[in-house]
Amino acid sequence: GWIEMAKYQIATIEGDGIGPEVCGATVHVLKEALGSGIMDFNQFPGGASHYVKSGFVLPEETFAACQHSHAMLHGAAGLPDVTYPDGTEVGNDLHLQLRFKLDLYANVRPIRLYQGDFSPLKNRQAGDIDYVIVRENTEGLYASRGAGVLLRGEVATDTLVVTRKGVERIAKFAFELSRKRSGAPSDHKRRMTVCDKANILRSYAFFRAICDEVAQSYPDVAIDYSYVDAMTVHLVKRPEFYDVIVAENMFGDIISDLGAATVGGMGIAPSGELGDHHGLFQGAHGSAPDIAGLNVASPLATILSGSFMLRWLGDRHQDQQLTEAAERIERAVELTLSQGKVIPRDLGGQASCTDVTQAICRNLD
Amino acid sequence: GWIEMAKYQIATIEGDGIGPEVCGATVHVLKEALGSGIMDFNQFPGGASHYVKSGFVLPEETFAACQHSHAMLHGAAGLPDVTYPDGTEVGNDLHLQLRFKLDLYANVRPIRLYQGDFSPLKNRQAGDIDYVIVRENTEGLYASRGAGVLLRGEVATDTLVVTRKGVERIAKFAFELSRKRSGAPSDHKRRMTVCDKANILRSYAFFRAICDEVAQSYPDVAIDYSYVDAMTVHLVKRPEFYDVIVAENMFGDIISDLGAATVGGMGIAPSGELGDHHGLFQGAHGSAPDIAGLNVASPLATILSGSFMLRWLGDRHQDQQLTEAAERIERAVELTLSQGKVIPRDLGGQASCTDVTQAICRNLD
Ligand SMILES: CC(C)[C@H](C(=O)O)[C@@H](O)C(=O)O
Ligand SMILES: CC(C)[C@H](C(=O)O)[C@@H](O)C(=O)O
Repeated sequence: GWIEMAKYQIATIEGDGIGPEVCGATVHVLKEALGSGIMDFNQFPGGASHYVKSGFVLPEETFAACQHSHAMLHGAAGLPDVTYPDGTEVGNDLHLQLRFKLDLYANVRPIRLYQGDFSPLKNRQAGDIDYVIVRENTEGLYASRGAGVLLRGEVATDTLVVTRKGVERIAKFAFELSRKRSGAPSDHKRRMTVCDKANILRSYAFFRAICDEVAQSYPDVAIDYSYVDAMTVHLVKRPEFYDVIVAENMFGDIISDLGAATVGGMGIAPSGELGDHHGLFQGAHGSAPDIAGLNVASPLATILSGSFMLRWLGDRHQDQQLTEAAERIERAVELTLSQGKVIPRDLGGQASCTDVTQAICRNLD
Repeated sequence: GWIEMAKYQIATIEGDGIGPEVCGATVHVLKEALGSGIMDFNQFPGGASHYVKSGFVLPEETFAACQHSHAMLHGAAGLPDVTYPDGTEVGNDLHLQLRFKLDLYANVRPIRLYQGDFSPLKNRQAGDIDYVIVRENTEGLYASRGAGVLLRGEVATDTLVVTRKGVERIAKFAFELSRKRSGAPSDHKRRMTVCDKANILRSYAFFRAICDEVAQSYPDVAIDYSYVDAMTVHLVKRPEFYDVIVAENMFGDIISDLGAATVGGMGIAPSGELGDHHGLFQGAHGSAPDIAGLNVASPLATILSGSFMLRWLGDRHQDQQLTEAAERIERAVELTLSQGKVIPRDLGGQASCTDVTQAICRNLD
């Protein structure tokens, strides 16, 4: 017989630990917001537990599906005991292979404080923290993964690689994002902050210099600089100052987790990893195997990543109904949190994963 | 005629910006606490403004004095407009030359919350935050300073270098510190946390492996691990967990500023850079040329670095009177802050640099 295919095909990889719960919750919310016939969610295996069963962390058919789908939605991958002979975690590899093979060069991490008592920082209200970190996702220190040298057990080296092409495209991405995003820093000025350590290393000085070159084409966006060490102080003491921040891979990894911490933690931090042709969406948190299957994990980060996916697809395909569904989901998340009744545990509440999922579905306008 | 020399000779470099004010304040407090005849403070030129005048950021005679003194006390160095042809700041060079030439391998950053409303974090009392970051100070990514490669304006590289010797000595230092320090984490268990990114890079996996080897000799100290990204979340969400944290140079640079931010900022963060033969002490902050000469800078970080110097010298020379003077200074700082009347501006008060200095002198018991 025939199977009617929806317009958008999404490859979902539930992965390990809490991955299946939070991914399932997200698919549920997305279907509810979109109605039927618009998007198909096709599950594919991958991750550490699949590696244990099959020897493959990212099976060929999963990779092919990722390549040919409109977008990828991922739960989480990784189990602490499942490691390669060199000691690195197998689960990370799923993620890193997709980044490098599909050239997902922009890791976009929106940092936004919702209404409620969620920030560990004093005196911060919803709206005070609303910026986006754009992490270069394919070079920098991560270029050395699997390529570091260990000599006679005496010395180990890794190489930080920064390319003109890599910085040009990520800087351009960050400037464009500053132009089009709806949040604005407190002084309502578009601003793109370069986070580096140009005072110490040539690679970072080069990173900054290329950002300066790209800035010439964006006179409407103010360019601003911060050394990474000072940046950590600023994100804690004056987060309201920031609009878009761009950083090399490793620095971006570090400051995005810090940013997430200031708005409540990894459980509310969405992430999108975008290339020119592909997009991978998942919560910024790990697989938390210790609470897997207990229905206590928060699905918020994954749900917000799912709505990010809808926005991204809506933009790419000029499809207003996707953008509207994304906006409805975001309003439902806002409403659920501001009502203060159904709050996940990591944000200080008692609600289960399914409680949160249902509340968001109820609150869809 | 003859000049009677005191037992301890300290080389002071006031440096740039607020350096002279905060260094002067510290010498004043130290003299007051020690009485006369114990310690001489000998001023030597160095820093960005001296470079402008003379062409030397660290003149030979200053370096010789540093080498032959019992310890070094430094204000701050650096002026944003004084740069080398490659764009890096001249001021940093003073500091970095001393680190590398005198092999000051342990950068010790005590992170401690004082009584008063100083933390940007909610619900934290004095005593909740009390740990020490031990930053490896002579290798890691900083090994590449001045040695990075820029090829045809297309690609720049820097090399992260981790050696067995470098990690062994810093890990040993951190374990020893955990054994002997007076602060303890909330569960009263000695703990040494290794901050790395062993899941991604071989150098960091090597760093962790060597720490594990060294741990064999310290069964009384629990070893614990955190990836640097997760570490930033922990320092914000559960700082009370930590005792001593050890990190590679760049990661240590980043997390020490974050730690400082959680207890009030760089203006209250002392720093000691220690080798087997030399010790350099100064506040962790920069030279803040915008407020230089206005008598508004806080001298607290430098004063606390000065008392750290007395403790270090007291240990080395088994000289109880130095240790006692250090304790008296620390009690006077605690008392001054807890009285809540003379509070520097960066901590929310109105007091000038001299106000704070005088209050501390008055409060010496
Ligand atoms: C999963 C892991 C490879 C990863 C990273 O280091 O990039 C994670 O921390 C992230 O931020 O996505
Ligand atoms: C002054 C500068 C060289 C420096 C560094 O990057 O180490 C500073 O940030 C520090 O922490 O001491």
